[in-house]
Amino acid sequence: MAAMGRTDGKAYERAGVDLEAAARTLDLITREVESTYTPGVLRGLGAFGGLFELPPGLERPVLVASTDGVGTKTVLARRYAHEPGVLEGIGRDLVNHCVNDVLVQGATPLFFLDYVASERLEPEVTARLVSGVAAACRQAGMALLGGETAEMPGVYRQGEFDLAGTIVGVVERAAVVDGSRARPGDAVLAFPSGGLQTNGFSLARRALAGRFDDALSDGTPVWRALLAEHRSFLPAVRPPLARGLVRAMAHVTGGGLPGNVPRGLPRGTGARLRRDAWEVPEVFRLIAAAGGVADDEMFDVFNMGLGFVVVVGATDLEEALVLAPDALHVGELMEGSGVVLL
Amino acid sequence: MAAMGRTDGKAYERAGVDLEAAARTLDLITREVESTYTPGVLRGLGAFGGLFELPPGLERPVLVASTDGVGTKTVLARRYAHEPGVLEGIGRDLVNHCVNDVLVQGATPLFFLDYVASERLEPEVTARLVSGVAAACRQAGMALLGGETAEMPGVYRQGEFDLAGTIVGVVERAAVVDGSRARPGDAVLAFPSGGLQTNGFSLARRALAGRFDDALSDGTPVWRALLAEHRSFLPAVRPPLARGLVRAMAHVTGGGLPGNVPRGLPRGTGARLRRDAWEVPEVFRLIAAAGGVADDEMFDVFNMGLGFVVVVGATDLEEALVLAPDALHVGELMEGSGVVLL
Repeated sequence: MAAMGRTDGKAYERAGVDLEAAARTLDLITREVESTYTPGVLRGLGAFGGLFELPPGLERPVLVASTDGVGTKTVLARRYAHEPGVLEGIGRDLVNHCVNDVLVQGATPLFFLDYVASERLEPEVTARLVSGVAAACRQAGMALLGGETAEMPGVYRQGEFDLAGTIVGVVERAAVVDGSRARPGDAVLAFPSGGLQTNGFSLARRALAGRFDDALSDGTPVWRALLAEHRSFLPAVRPPLARGLVRAMAHVTGGGLPGNVPRGLPRGTGARLRRDAWEVPEVFRLIAAAGGVADDEMFDVFNMGLGFVVVVGATDLEEALVLAPDALHVGELMEGSGVVLL
Repeated sequence: MAAMGRTDGKAYERAGVDLEAAARTLDLITREVESTYTPGVLRGLGAFGGLFELPPGLERPVLVASTDGVGTKTVLARRYAHEPGVLEGIGRDLVNHCVNDVLVQGATPLFFLDYVASERLEPEVTARLVSGVAAACRQAGMALLGGETAEMPGVYRQGEFDLAGTIVGVVERAAVVDGSRARPGDAVLAFPSGGLQTNGFSLARRALAGRFDDALSDGTPVWRALLAEHRSFLPAVRPPLARGLVRAMAHVTGGGLPGNVPRGLPRGTGARLRRDAWEVPEVFRLIAAAGGVADDEMFDVFNMGLGFVVVVGATDLEEALVLAPDALHVGELMEGSGVVLL
C-alpha cells in the first residue's frame, strides 16, 4: 500500500483526503496481508515495491500476468454490504478471476496486487474487501505482495468503489498451455460456474432491477444468486493439468463461451458444444425473461453456467473425468472456427 | 486486454455497456501496445494472461512489483483534455511513477499492465491514455504486457475516469538496494521533480480552484505547471546505481520527503536536509498561499521540488555528482529517525 503521511492534514482533509482513515485502513489490513506471505516474499507492505524471489530450480521461467476488475458487481455488493460475507466475497471474486486467467496458460500463482479506489475512504469497507482478497490469495498459495488504496474525491459516485487487481504466476516454458496441441476431435470439458462470476452485471442489474429480493425456486434470494462467488478452477484443473492431459483451456469471462473458447484454440479449429450437456442455471433464465434478452445475446454476455473449459485428447477423456470429477463433457473440437451451440 | 464480445449487444448497450466502443478501443490501441514488445514477450494482447519469459542468465532473480494510480490528477487532465498531450501525459505519469517505485529497490522494469475505468467508454480518450502509457513503457525498455479497460455505469461520475497500473521489474538478489548499507554521515542527493508528480492533487485543485488559467511568473499557465510530467528517474539514477554507489533510495510520493525518505533507511537512521539546497518551485508556493496551507503540511503532502532521493557514501559524493549531473546535494544521514528540515 502507498505511504501514509504523518501530517495533521487539515487542508488535505478539507480537500476530501482523510489521512487518519488511511492510517486506520493500514492498521486493519496489515495482519490479513501478512497472513498471505509465502517463502518468496522478501519484503511486502510498506516497501515502494514488493520483493518476491522466484522459486529455485526453474529452467526457463515464463511469467504470466493479468490485470482485471470485478466490474459493476461492486454496485450490487455495495447495496448488500450489510449482509455478512458480501464485501469479502467481492475480494475473493477478484482474486479467483485472476487465478483462472493465468491458469489458462498453465501458470501457478506467485503473487497478487490489489487496487481499491473510492470517493471517500471507508476503512471498514476496504478492510472487508482486502480480507476477502487475502483469503483467496491464501487459498491459491499466493502472496498479496502489494496494492494501493486510493481516495479520489470527484471521480467516483458517492458510496461507490472500484476494485481491480493484478496477478503474476509462473510456468516453465515447456509447460505453457497455448492450444497448439489441440486437434479436431478432441473432447471439450467444462466446469460449472458458481453463477455470473464477474461478468454481465450491468445488464443483469438492469434486467432484474426491483427483483433482487425475490427468491429463486429453491428459496435463494436473487441478490445472493447474483453475488455467488467467482469460483477458482485451480484445484479442479490441477490434477489433469499435472498429468499432461490438457491441450487448451479457456476462462469464460466477458464474451461468454463464443467469445472465450476460441481464444485458447489454434487457427482453423472451432468447438461444437451440446446445449443438452448442462443445465443453464435459473438465474440466467430469469435475466433473459425479465430483461427480454435474446438467447444469442445471453450466450455472448454470460457464461450460462460453464465457468472454465478444458480440452483433452479423445482417448484421454475417461482419465480426465476421473481426475476432474465435476467436469462435464460438453462437446468436441472441429475443423472451422468459433463456437457452434447444438 | 479483456475479451471483447461479438454480440450485437442490444440489451447490453441499453444497460450502458457499449461493445462496439470496446472493439474500436482495441483497434486504436493495438499498434501502440505492440510497439512496446521486448524480446521477453511470448504473448500479449488477446491472451488471458500475458506471457513474459525472464531474461536468461539471472542467478537469483527477485521480482519487484508495484501497483499505483495517478490520483485525482485525472480530474484536471480531463478538464484540459482538449490540449494536445494532456491525456497522453497522464499515461506517462502513471508509468513513470511505477518505474520509480521499483527503481527504489534497484530493479529494472520488465513489464507493465494498465487499468482504465470510466462511466462510459470513450475510445479516443482511452486510446490517448494508452498511447502515453505505451510511450513511457518504450522509454523504460518495458513491455505493455496486458491491461483492462472497464466500463462501469453507476460507479464513476459522468466524464471521469480512473487510471491505475502495475509494474513488474527484476533485480539480482545480491543487488537489491534495501538501505542496509546506509550509515549516518552518508550524503543525501536529490533529483528535481517536474512539479507535483502525481500527489496532492485533491488539495491543489481545492487551493487553486478558479486560478488554473492564471500564469506563473514565467508565463506558464497554472494548469500546465500542475500537469507537468511525473519524471522517470531511471535514466538519471542508472549510472551511479550501476557503479554500486547507491546505498538507499526513496521516491517522493504521497507523504512528501518526511513520509518517504525514512522508508528507505535502516532503523536508527534519519536524514537532515538543508532547505537552502534547492528552490521550492513557484507552483508549490502558490498552492500554499492560495490554500492557506501551513509549511509543515505542504512538506507532508507535496514533494516540494525534489522527486527522488539517493543516498551515497560521503567519499563517493563527488563521483556520484559526476555520474548524475542533475542531482543536488541536499543533506546527510544522521543517527535518529525521520527527516529534519534545516
